[in-house]
Amino acid sequence: MENNITKDIIGASDTICAVSTAPGMGGIAVIRISGPQAIDIVGRLWHGKKLDTIATHTAHLGRIDGPDSEILDQGVATVFRAPNTFTGEDTVELSVHGSPYIQQQLLAALVNTGCRIAGPGEFTRRAFANGRLDLTEAEAVADIIAASSRAAHNLAVSQLRGDLSRSIDALRDSLVHIASMLELELDFSEEDVSFADRDLLTRLATDICDKVDSMASTFATGDALRRGVPVAIIGRPNVGKSCLLNALLGTDRAIVSDIPGTTRDTVEDTIDINGITFRFIDTAGLRHTDDPVETIGIQRAIDKARTARIILWLVTPDNIGTDDFEENLREITATISDDTRLIAVLNKIDLDSAPDVTLAHLVSALPQNVTALPVSARLNKGIDTLRVTLSATITAGLDSGENLIVANVRHYHALRDASVALRRVLSGLATAQYTDLIAQDLREAIHHLSTITGSITTDNILDSIFEHFCIGK
Amino acid sequence: MENNITKDIIGASDTICAVSTAPGMGGIAVIRISGPQAIDIVGRLWHGKKLDTIATHTAHLGRIDGPDSEILDQGVATVFRAPNTFTGEDTVELSVHGSPYIQQQLLAALVNTGCRIAGPGEFTRRAFANGRLDLTEAEAVADIIAASSRAAHNLAVSQLRGDLSRSIDALRDSLVHIASMLELELDFSEEDVSFADRDLLTRLATDICDKVDSMASTFATGDALRRGVPVAIIGRPNVGKSCLLNALLGTDRAIVSDIPGTTRDTVEDTIDINGITFRFIDTAGLRHTDDPVETIGIQRAIDKARTARIILWLVTPDNIGTDDFEENLREITATISDDTRLIAVLNKIDLDSAPDVTLAHLVSALPQNVTALPVSARLNKGIDTLRVTLSATITAGLDSGENLIVANVRHYHALRDASVALRRVLSGLATAQYTDLIAQDLREAIHHLSTITGSITTDNILDSIFEHFCIGK
Repeated sequence: MENNITKDIIGASDTICAVSTAPGMGGIAVIRISGPQAIDIVGRLWHGKKLDTIATHTAHLGRIDGPDSEILDQGVATVFRAPNTFTGEDTVELSVHGSPYIQQQLLAALVNTGCRIAGPGEFTRRAFANGRLDLTEAEAVADIIAASSRAAHNLAVSQLRGDLSRSIDALRDSLVHIASMLELELDFSEEDVSFADRDLLTRLATDICDKVDSMASTFATGDALRRGVPVAIIGRPNVGKSCLLNALLGTDRAIVSDIPGTTRDTVEDTIDINGITFRFIDTAGLRHTDDPVETIGIQRAIDKARTARIILWLVTPDNIGTDDFEENLREITATISDDTRLIAVLNKIDLDSAPDVTLAHLVSALPQNVTALPVSARLNKGIDTLRVTLSATITAGLDSGENLIVANVRHYHALRDASVALRRVLSGLATAQYTDLIAQDLREAIHHLSTITGSITTDNILDSIFEHFCIGK
Repeated sequence: MENNITKDIIGASDTICAVSTAPGMGGIAVIRISGPQAIDIVGRLWHGKKLDTIATHTAHLGRIDGPDSEILDQGVATVFRAPNTFTGEDTVELSVHGSPYIQQQLLAALVNTGCRIAGPGEFTRRAFANGRLDLTEAEAVADIIAASSRAAHNLAVSQLRGDLSRSIDALRDSLVHIASMLELELDFSEEDVSFADRDLLTRLATDICDKVDSMASTFATGDALRRGVPVAIIGRPNVGKSCLLNALLGTDRAIVSDIPGTTRDTVEDTIDINGITFRFIDTAGLRHTDDPVETIGIQRAIDKARTARIILWLVTPDNIGTDDFEENLREITATISDDTRLIAVLNKIDLDSAPDVTLAHLVSALPQNVTALPVSARLNKGIDTLRVTLSATITAGLDSGENLIVANVRHYHALRDASVALRRVLSGLATAQYTDLIAQDLREAIHHLSTITGSITTDNILDSIFEHFCIGK
């Protein structure tokens, strides 16, 4: 892949440096220096084996100067010579004692000696500019660092391995093949002949369009896996919403991390079930409402829960079948989107003399596609089954034979745009439109797929991608 | 240096692993594995060039398995073969993407494959056990990581370079020389002769004792430099204490870091002046006292400020020479220790019609060794001079020809103990005591000096040193 224009624009003639390890105090910190002058600049601060004479991919102990030209620390310099480096440029990694003071002083010394402090993701951007990674792989670098659950991690690893790129490239190649058949026809357009078999082209384009749609359809799940599955617990006051949340949180509280670029609704509780993070959307503001009309409360909760992938509707035995219940059910089913799954949770079964009868009562009151589960949040009963159900609700979307999951909103939009163009191609073929119009729509579909892997891109796209990276990567 | 006993006790036959970089999310994280099985264990998780065949100090790109035997990440493995490694053992450093998830999973995979999670400072402890570092150098590793100012950093760098060890070893060698002369005499004790010239021995021992005392005397300054210089601002209500603190804080606010093993009095404000951190002890509780007897307030402030190295006593023009002033001055000078420097700060000079006269008045009211400085905290006047004075007050202690500064309380106590034993030696020589008693005191002095560099040590000492280290170092 060639990205010479981008390479020139971002001006990789200078040498950049940054702390690549997590901020703060640690046993060691790694400062990465990349660019044409990397070895020379570090060499001017270095006391030890001459860096410009040592072999690539070797590590050496030495001492390094601070900005005052006095010894700052002793550490290990590892030299990576272009082109077999992460960025594709000469790179030096300095492993020093991990005090914030040393990190800060070493950066100052490097800047004094001719380095520039790297911007967010600038090392990865250079890797892309030098053809070491395509764009989906570069994006996967940020995702892999931000991933805090097995599901999110595996998505990013697959993407970094190039799985998505290969699928996209295969689809694009097929489109290019169709386009070449059409272009051939255009070359002879004066003679008004049809070289390409329109039925064959339609079959090929339909197949590609289906595949694009199928990939795009995985986004809802992919996004949920990557950022955590948003879950809302709604229900009338005193049905036990916070009790249920506490029971669910139990010992499964997930690793909470600040993930750049993922906007979280509020401060949320998260749990990890089978490697998938579930984020509970805070509808707490409704609990203490003084509003006499409780249905308004429910309505507001539903509005807030509209972004949820799963809604846990909590009811109690005495509530089932009442007017209130019917009213809430109507409003919920009328409001939620197709992507949202509703699970009715019957709480306080420990207080019920005949819980099985009550559950049957509830099931008969619900539409067929709504799961009903009995729990006692107070006694921690039924919670494990609820956990399994939450997990299965998400993974069910993955068992449909489609291994590849799209988890990035940029890729999703590009697939949707490609799909729209392909539908115009199909309609053009069906209505025997002019070949050059069909060819133009085809080129547009190819363009959209190309933006995914970055074989066609712009600085604006690159800026918006890399600004969400951490410094040092 | 040999530490075979220690080495056997801590049982370095197993292989340890830990995240060596700062906790949290970063571009990369480094997991260090050290021990006889390091290369073998990592090799079992590694996909890439075979680690057991590659040269020492070389870095290789590959993929590494997680605990579920699926690819967890791609990263760089750098192999360091014993004995030229930090620990003296075979060591592998894995540089992977810096997500908390990957770090956690990689540790789990390493533990499954036969590693043990390293305790705090265990890598450095192994470096000590294998003679790669002496004990002062090992302690300097923790200090260098915790250092947040230039002064603290330089102290630790000097100690890591072995400056302290060389001085201690030189003193100990001199004592061993004296001891050997005395021991020779003891071998012939039946014959009741004096081989050694007592005057010469006395001169030698006096010289060493002076050097030990001189090193011990640097501790007050060294400790202040390492942990930050404690400064108390005291004074009657409304003299402008918080205004002065804010003026001092100005733009010089120091890097604040959590330093393991240094107990901070309270949450404090710190500033950095000429690379030295000054910590302001909070005496704020006195500001809003309702106590009618203000001298009691001052007394309590002095009590609280007893740990300070510098007391800034804030007075206003109208206060000088009053009974109250005299009373406060008496109490302050009677209470503070010899190590504490008192600086009288005359505030609100902007409100004074004749500030020079007032200052002269103040100077004449103070003992000769107390510095007086005029400031207007409100108008930020005189603050720079106060800063310079604060800095000079500390560095003055360093200009006394003694370059080596003792900053570790363990070293200080060992020097004090050695000094006490040496005084008994001198007194024994002076009073012509039995040679074997003098020799015993000499051996005790040698013992105390030996504990500093760790050529004599115990597991208890080592435990208490390394428990304050961070994990991964």
